[in-house]
Amino acid sequence: MKEKDYAVKDIKLAKQGQERIEWARRHMPVLGKIKEEFEKAKPLKGVNVIACLHVTVETANLIEALIAGGANVALTASNPLSTQDDVAAALAKKGVKVYAIRGEDEKQYYENIESALKIKPNITLDDGADVIATVHSKHKEYLKSIYGGCEETTTGVIRLRAMAKDKALKYPVVAVNDAETKMMFDNRYGTGQSTLHGIINATNVLLAGKTVVVVGYGWCGRGCASRAKGMGSNVVVVEINARKALEAAMDGFQVMDMKEAAKVGDIFITVTGDIAVIRGEHFKLMKDQAIVCNSGHFNVELALDELKKMSKSVTTVKADVDEYLLKGGNRIYVLGEGRLVNLACAFGHPPEVMDMSFANQALCVKYIAENHKKLKNDVYKVPEEIDTRVAEMKLESMGIKLEKLTKEQEKYLSSWSMGT
Amino acid sequence: MKEKDYAVKDIKLAKQGQERIEWARRHMPVLGKIKEEFEKAKPLKGVNVIACLHVTVETANLIEALIAGGANVALTASNPLSTQDDVAAALAKKGVKVYAIRGEDEKQYYENIESALKIKPNITLDDGADVIATVHSKHKEYLKSIYGGCEETTTGVIRLRAMAKDKALKYPVVAVNDAETKMMFDNRYGTGQSTLHGIINATNVLLAGKTVVVVGYGWCGRGCASRAKGMGSNVVVVEINARKALEAAMDGFQVMDMKEAAKVGDIFITVTGDIAVIRGEHFKLMKDQAIVCNSGHFNVELALDELKKMSKSVTTVKADVDEYLLKGGNRIYVLGEGRLVNLACAFGHPPEVMDMSFANQALCVKYIAENHKKLKNDVYKVPEEIDTRVAEMKLESMGIKLEKLTKEQEKYLSSWSMGT
Amino acid sequence: MKEKDYAVKDIKLAKQGQERIEWARRHMPVLGKIKEEFEKAKPLKGVNVIACLHVTVETANLIEALIAGGANVALTASNPLSTQDDVAAALAKKGVKVYAIRGEDEKQYYENIESALKIKPNITLDDGADVIATVHSKHKEYLKSIYGGCEETTTGVIRLRAMAKDKALKYPVVAVNDAETKMMFDNRYGTGQSTLHGIINATNVLLAGKTVVVVGYGWCGRGCASRAKGMGSNVVVVEINARKALEAAMDGFQVMDMKEAAKVGDIFITVTGDIAVIRGEHFKLMKDQAIVCNSGHFNVELALDELKKMSKSVTTVKADVDEYLLKGGNRIYVLGEGRLVNLACAFGHPPEVMDMSFANQALCVKYIAENHKKLKNDVYKVPEEIDTRVAEMKLESMGIKLEKLTKEQEKYLSSWSMGT
Amino acid sequence: MKEKDYAVKDIKLAKQGQERIEWARRHMPVLGKIKEEFEKAKPLKGVNVIACLHVTVETANLIEALIAGGANVALTASNPLSTQDDVAAALAKKGVKVYAIRGEDEKQYYENIESALKIKPNITLDDGADVIATVHSKHKEYLKSIYGGCEETTTGVIRLRAMAKDKALKYPVVAVNDAETKMMFDNRYGTGQSTLHGIINATNVLLAGKTVVVVGYGWCGRGCASRAKGMGSNVVVVEINARKALEAAMDGFQVMDMKEAAKVGDIFITVTGDIAVIRGEHFKLMKDQAIVCNSGHFNVELALDELKKMSKSVTTVKADVDEYLLKGGNRIYVLGEGRLVNLACAFGHPPEVMDMSFANQALCVKYIAENHKKLKNDVYKVPEEIDTRVAEMKLESMGIKLEKLTKEQEKYLSSWSMGT
Repeated sequence: MKEKDYAVKDIKLAKQGQERIEWARRHMPVLGKIKEEFEKAKPLKGVNVIACLHVTVETANLIEALIAGGANVALTASNPLSTQDDVAAALAKKGVKVYAIRGEDEKQYYENIESALKIKPNITLDDGADVIATVHSKHKEYLKSIYGGCEETTTGVIRLRAMAKDKALKYPVVAVNDAETKMMFDNRYGTGQSTLHGIINATNVLLAGKTVVVVGYGWCGRGCASRAKGMGSNVVVVEINARKALEAAMDGFQVMDMKEAAKVGDIFITVTGDIAVIRGEHFKLMKDQAIVCNSGHFNVELALDELKKMSKSVTTVKADVDEYLLKGGNRIYVLGEGRLVNLACAFGHPPEVMDMSFANQALCVKYIAENHKKLKNDVYKVPEEIDTRVAEMKLESMGIKLEKLTKEQEKYLSSWSMGT
Repeated sequence: MKEKDYAVKDIKLAKQGQERIEWARRHMPVLGKIKEEFEKAKPLKGVNVIACLHVTVETANLIEALIAGGANVALTASNPLSTQDDVAAALAKKGVKVYAIRGEDEKQYYENIESALKIKPNITLDDGADVIATVHSKHKEYLKSIYGGCEETTTGVIRLRAMAKDKALKYPVVAVNDAETKMMFDNRYGTGQSTLHGIINATNVLLAGKTVVVVGYGWCGRGCASRAKGMGSNVVVVEINARKALEAAMDGFQVMDMKEAAKVGDIFITVTGDIAVIRGEHFKLMKDQAIVCNSGHFNVELALDELKKMSKSVTTVKADVDEYLLKGGNRIYVLGEGRLVNLACAFGHPPEVMDMSFANQALCVKYIAENHKKLKNDVYKVPEEIDTRVAEMKLESMGIKLEKLTKEQEKYLSSWSMGT
Repeated sequence: MKEKDYAVKDIKLAKQGQERIEWARRHMPVLGKIKEEFEKAKPLKGVNVIACLHVTVETANLIEALIAGGANVALTASNPLSTQDDVAAALAKKGVKVYAIRGEDEKQYYENIESALKIKPNITLDDGADVIATVHSKHKEYLKSIYGGCEETTTGVIRLRAMAKDKALKYPVVAVNDAETKMMFDNRYGTGQSTLHGIINATNVLLAGKTVVVVGYGWCGRGCASRAKGMGSNVVVVEINARKALEAAMDGFQVMDMKEAAKVGDIFITVTGDIAVIRGEHFKLMKDQAIVCNSGHFNVELALDELKKMSKSVTTVKADVDEYLLKGGNRIYVLGEGRLVNLACAFGHPPEVMDMSFANQALCVKYIAENHKKLKNDVYKVPEEIDTRVAEMKLESMGIKLEKLTKEQEKYLSSWSMGT
Repeated sequence: MKEKDYAVKDIKLAKQGQERIEWARRHMPVLGKIKEEFEKAKPLKGVNVIACLHVTVETANLIEALIAGGANVALTASNPLSTQDDVAAALAKKGVKVYAIRGEDEKQYYENIESALKIKPNITLDDGADVIATVHSKHKEYLKSIYGGCEETTTGVIRLRAMAKDKALKYPVVAVNDAETKMMFDNRYGTGQSTLHGIINATNVLLAGKTVVVVGYGWCGRGCASRAKGMGSNVVVVEINARKALEAAMDGFQVMDMKEAAKVGDIFITVTGDIAVIRGEHFKLMKDQAIVCNSGHFNVELALDELKKMSKSVTTVKADVDEYLLKGGNRIYVLGEGRLVNLACAFGHPPEVMDMSFANQALCVKYIAENHKKLKNDVYKVPEEIDTRVAEMKLESMGIKLEKLTKEQEKYLSSWSMGT
């Protein structure tokens, strides 16, 4: 390995990181099977991949699968607070070009992306579209060698669709986020469990008996609301979309606008993909000791600048908990500096859901490598057959049997002449 | 009124029917508001409509809204067992051409459709596509005056898509079923509650502690499974689709194939839109006293002919419950002759969900009347603005406030240049 | 049979009643087994029993078990609105002395109790303590032949404890209500399901999306709250007891006082055993179209006299629904005249729970017959061994296997010297 | 401070511990109020207290309340793996005699109890009855100065009842565990949340879609089962008690004996208070990669000695996870060495429930100090007025309003003459 080929916190953490990576592997059987296939067929031979993802044990398993397929990989963090330093160390030790340190500042963050870009990527993997944004703005020199990219998260897909609409997108991107086996599982069950885990880790408060306000009722919000209810909380939902608001109401939740919700909540979780959804006008209505966190991709959902201006002091009262003391005397606790609480205060999604998300990623990387010449500069859905295959492999790993259509049933479903 | 302008069980039931129609109206505020608008604007003036729908109190309110809009309406049943005779009487008494008698046989059923067709329809409303099928096969003479149609149910839409694919569809049809404000509410919350209501009405068994097998995990199946869980049942799901099976498993249900499920279930509910999903090979594995019913549109989901062949005797042990005594001695109870249990043994969907479904219907009838010249012979989605408007009207009637986007948020969501 | 040996609505309903009794029997395996034992051993030979119970299909099965054991039984209703006339007819036809007509007035109600008392009871079975109250006040002549009694319901047990405390109780009573296999199952799962069934039967409203206020969080209230949540309602609990209120809050419900709850509820259910828990001061705060019902034993929980005084008119808008039109214009719907909604508007508890409750009753009748000489004039618990035996028989009938203690475990549990 | 007046891991952890203790204090308002009262009234002036409790942030707040009341306190751990070393350091720094180091061996554990006993206790606080057992067996010299004791946990109360039955108990003990405001909240909501937290911390597995076997359906088991269901697991319950098994079934869980459950579980949790509930005969039936943990007080519920004998190797694959590789090739993962997973792998109960449990403790210590002369050598219930007062203070701190009885209602509830 050449000098300066990685930037990690402490290479000595490699052993612990490796242990944890292997533990996660035990719960990622689908990705494991794909890795085996990749090892034989080498579909990514010579392909350079830049991955800008949360540097977690699950990501490490994706990276290993891509390498098994023949790829050269550079890895950088998709969020300054989500890097697990032991995992970064373990990957670096094995020779992966990793540039990721938990708690790095914004300058470092973008420098790390630039370091990773030196791999001259053919394929970009994003979780929040930061690499795509970088090569489209500051580093257009890399555009010409790029076949295509994958985007992992809702927030990123929103960004990319806006780019495609403006004809600003310069290479094809597969919206891995939108695969059913990703979105419906990772965003819902993964975010639901890991968001609550982050809140409990940071605060150890009892969820039973608390009023939890979930802002946003997309798949992530549905997951958070459903799990909070399952833990004994009284859940309030805030939405801007009429049909989602109606669904939340029918699911048994109270639905309010943000101002009303601000008054009744004990714990607030934002999962909207939008900016400043909880603002000064809301913070000032909150109860003393309200707990506020964000589980959306970017740390812009909470208007912490406004909160800071309203406060006499800001104190870190324990790890991951900042107390904002308002001028009127109320205290508001912000978790993980408003960054996604499931990664800042917990381990991110459980391996079982990342197994599906990253199985989609791995198969989509292969798909781009094999089909990029046919693709236009647009946002693509994950091919149906990939999505279905991931589901089938997952079910098999869980020992679940599907019912099969009989001949008669197949015929019935495709015919229209049989009557009442 | 001319003679023979209706066919109902007993016109003397009109008063009770009218009372019940008015009761339902109290819980259908969105349709009520549309009716008011129709009364003023008369958008259906002179339009002939044939409606082949479940003849229930909610349908009566739709019919009244259409008439308020200026339409001439003939109504016939979409299922021989779902007619509420008092409702049919009340409508007949007011001059609506109603041809529907609960328990009519198949011959009568189709004769009634033919009677209703004499109105020379411009627009057809279907719940299971029987009118569309009739005018496409036996009564093509009516095709030329038809502008278009609406289809209310999943099963019908499957049929129509198959027809459109075969180029056999001769006029445009709006798949009202697929409106979000229909499918996600009526199919899920409506079917969920009313299916359990039908089962309890027919049997009065305690759901807590029972193993309930739900066959099919579409919106109807999700509704049944979720409500059965909510009543304390242990729920098993059977699916043919890998992604839905996975979702069911993640929702905490046991997922099995039909053979395994047959052995463990106390109560079986089919909601697949498919044929013969529970067959002889499954009935023979069931526990003594298993209860079996169907909540899918057609009475083909249970292979009752096979069950009958396996049985020593079939006895109606109480209203809506047939006991099939198998040769080995086990008893299987079939509810409502395998017809949709929520209409055969209960009142069908609650008015609140039909409020949304029929608000979509009413607005789609208006849409067809106004736009039919622009439409092709294909299956159309409900226009987005209709779907959203229904949701907004419903929320307003429930006193629920939506959060509104700020200027900054709108800008953020449509931009792609803001970073981490 | 002598003339005038029964008073039922219509003896011709006997066939339908018999069918339904037999249907219920299929779901009462524990009582069935006890009946078999009674048939052989005749433990009640020559014992006269007066039963003042809800005259339902399940009660009919209890009566048949007692008769199988050798008892002479007279049956009267424990609530004027809960009698199922077809069941009364079926029992009368078989020669049981039944005096019960649905909708009888208060005078008839007490006359029927007096007719039944002519059997000169040795044992009294009550559901609300009306027979006990009658023989302690107006008909003390029967006291001397009475061995003891059983009381089925919370409300009755409260009454009897008050009597015992005042030394007013003149014979021993077993509080069957307090058996774990009664109270925790019948009051919770039975009342929960059947109360919602009654509300849906009367109104067909969609429970999902509604705010349901449950007044009282005893076992009945817990059942109603849990099932309403399971049907998608947002549930509010009102309590007077601090520990129960806390439990409700920890179970995820909103907890309020009655005045606050009155403002937010769509549907109100009282299950307190107390008087006038919803009063004029609350009715006047309710939303237009609020639905109000009672599932506690007596029809005193709703202060309907106060509501009537506040109203311009009271109209029965459909069967089981009275509309009170308040002077301000709001409408309040009262179900089943404020009598217990699960019996007035539905079938009462499912047979599976009555199987356990009445298995306790049957075994307690036997217990009193055999042990009455040893008992004092006090309220007794159901003997532990009866309670346990009922649970074990029920589990066996459900095919559920208990884990068994090993020798080592038995020793461990009774020892105190083994350490950390 | 004299030398050797504490034994903690690292006194330098005091600052972090103090921060965390203060964080917990924010969520313990009831104990906070009692501390204020104690500060004024000094009800424990000169009373020596030995506390053998889990050394957590919540316990630290109890200790501070007792000291505020005038007590001299020595603190030792009630479990070798549950001590939070930073908390021990913070208390030591303030002058409390603390003897507790996470991971101490059994010898150290009992030596620490002996060190703490040197305070010559008047009152003993136990969580598992280890101090009581010690002074009754090896250190009877302390018995004469002891007024009484408190016991915090189910397991300890079982032990003490056995001692009392054998007339072996030499001073009065209050079963704090049995307070409603302790048992129903701490054991259910506290154990439920913290057990799952421990499992997620140790493994990060997704609970949704897993089969979780809960062994024991007491309050702790109910809590674990309910929360696992709320997280999307399919839950199986194992019980020895017929009535609890029946309740579990009615709550919608599958109920099996241990042998059947062993075959289907992905995750096993024991909460029985009994010994060897999962044994070799069960481990050998488990699926590959089954996860096994204990949340009962003592680490005897899993027969790890038998498991070890069946294994080719035992490897710690990551912190808190031991992999037992069976001879047949299956892997079984044991969490936290079989010690209570919510303390070994998480923070123990949330402060909100310990607020109630320790409010009971503090008030019972005061009660014993004031009333010990009247008490016999028996196990006492927490006085009703303490239990109720804790509930009322808690509700007040949560801003929840109780409904109040009217005069009419009070009269009604105490009378027995009002009729149907």
